Amino acid sequence: MAQEAQAVPGSAGSVPVMSAFSDRLVEAVARKRSQLVVGLDPVPERLPPELRGEAGPDRGRAAAACEAFSRGIVDAVAPFAVAVKPQSAFFEALGPAGVAAYAAVCDHARAAGLLVIADAKRGDIGSTARAYAAAFVEPRDGAPPLADAVTVNPYMGRDSVEPFLDACEQHGGGIFCLVKTSNPGGADVQDLVLADGRPLWQQVARLVDEWGAGLVGERGLSVVGAVVGATYPREVAEARRPADLEPAFAAGPASALVNASRSVIYAHERGGDDWRAAAAAEAERLASEIWGVSGW
Amino acid sequence: MAQEAQAVPGSAGSVPVMSAFSDRLVEAVARKRSQLVVGLDPVPERLPPELRGEAGPDRGRAAAACEAFSRGIVDAVAPFAVAVKPQSAFFEALGPAGVAAYAAVCDHARAAGLLVIADAKRGDIGSTARAYAAAFVEPRDGAPPLADAVTVNPYMGRDSVEPFLDACEQHGGGIFCLVKTSNPGGADVQDLVLADGRPLWQQVARLVDEWGAGLVGERGLSVVGAVVGATYPREVAEARRPADLEPAFAAGPASALVNASRSVIYAHERGGDDWRAAAAAEAERLASEIWGVSGW
Repeated sequence: MAQEAQAVPGSAGSVPVMSAFSDRLVEAVARKRSQLVVGLDPVPERLPPELRGEAGPDRGRAAAACEAFSRGIVDAVAPFAVAVKPQSAFFEALGPAGVAAYAAVCDHARAAGLLVIADAKRGDIGSTARAYAAAFVEPRDGAPPLADAVTVNPYMGRDSVEPFLDACEQHGGGIFCLVKTSNPGGADVQDLVLADGRPLWQQVARLVDEWGAGLVGERGLSVVGAVVGATYPREVAEARRPADLEPAFAAGPASALVNASRSVIYAHERGGDDWRAAAAAEAERLASEIWGVSGW
Repeated sequence: MAQEAQAVPGSAGSVPVMSAFSDRLVEAVARKRSQLVVGLDPVPERLPPELRGEAGPDRGRAAAACEAFSRGIVDAVAPFAVAVKPQSAFFEALGPAGVAAYAAVCDHARAAGLLVIADAKRGDIGSTARAYAAAFVEPRDGAPPLADAVTVNPYMGRDSVEPFLDACEQHGGGIFCLVKTSNPGGADVQDLVLADGRPLWQQVARLVDEWGAGLVGERGLSVVGAVVGATYPREVAEARRPADLEPAFAAGPASALVNASRSVIYAHERGGDDWRAAAAAEAERLASEIWGVSGW
């Protein structure tokens, strides 16, 4: 069960923004007693049998099947998860129809009372970063933004993040910045040791904290979060303790979210009559386990 | 004039791949006597007056106008540039219609005899990275891949790049990996000094060279290139000399491409009756200047 903790750094003394993403998050976590984020990673080959047949033979059909699956999962996990995190790549792989399906899934999730974190890991600069911010966290032709928050990549530094910060401030969005990922190759760059003896990712955590310091909501959490890899909920509690990350974990359960993707959405592969019921049961179990482990 | 040098590292002794991206690149550079890549960064507000009026009021109209503009630029620069580099962000900002326009522009550029480098800077792992590879450098429902090559972000390490390498080997594609970008914030992460005294980006350059070592075409160039920021063509020649990058610059003009975006596509803003003619003239001038400076 691969999971990711997404911490929302918070620091005091900044100007609150109106209807900040982090305020909506704090409220939703408290109301649902859940820190669970369900990743939506639909691949045509792993859809339930009743949908798999509809996925071929072209990308348009596959997009429709992935949308139907994602909508079903959204409905199943809505009572137990605080947010969904639809993975843009799986929809982009299906072409323009896939991108339209992605938007439909995001809209459906918001209508189901879930926050939407677009997992896109974008990173670019200047007007290009502004365009990505427009794509993910700014209103679309009068409609609400595609997502409440979006994941970003820090490799290009502050000016790749600033346009997102501006958009978040204006439109109530949030970002989650990659810091330390749990894949084996994550060490290639993130664990490189700096001249002062720290691993690179700790300096990136510090940058993320700085970037978010000016965008703290009324409930004390920044709208800028960090993505920190963990493979079991217990590590989330441990991740709260490293000296360098301490400012990133404000008090309160919304300061650490836990992502689970395939263990939930493909729960039917481990048995069960109905894929929706299997996903709902696994989401309920996980949300409760995480809430217990994290000690709130 | 902000420009970026894109170096295609090469090393000897590897197994050649069939119709490798780098072989097509070597051939095109020699035939056109050009190392120029034109970035396609269409923003509705900067379109020529005749198209700007068509860009409003919704994203669908804007997408159509940006597509028409990009097609016109492609036709104008095709004799002088070796490739175009359409920036995905500007099309994604226009929603699903924008993504469809992006595909149309890529197809049009290929039909005009240009290589297509999708500027998407994707970076993720496992099946997600495979999905991004499918989106950009794998055949689409029997049609050719969207692009000949795609830009990627190295922050998540080797396993974020491997699925692209597999796809490139199978389908003749290439990747350009971010190494050192020219924006001010690029220093925040890329210039961090490692324990051995080198800046981080030099270690990333080494990783990129390793990742590409197994995918060298028949003409001696790897299909894995590095994106290195430079602000003037002269720096491209200088960039050939740093000890750490030396293996990345094989002999031959295709080993260093130079990107120019807004100075070409918005050349009409500096005067001229026709935006296509202005772009063509600037592309011709730049291609010749770069060829001269680089000394081939």
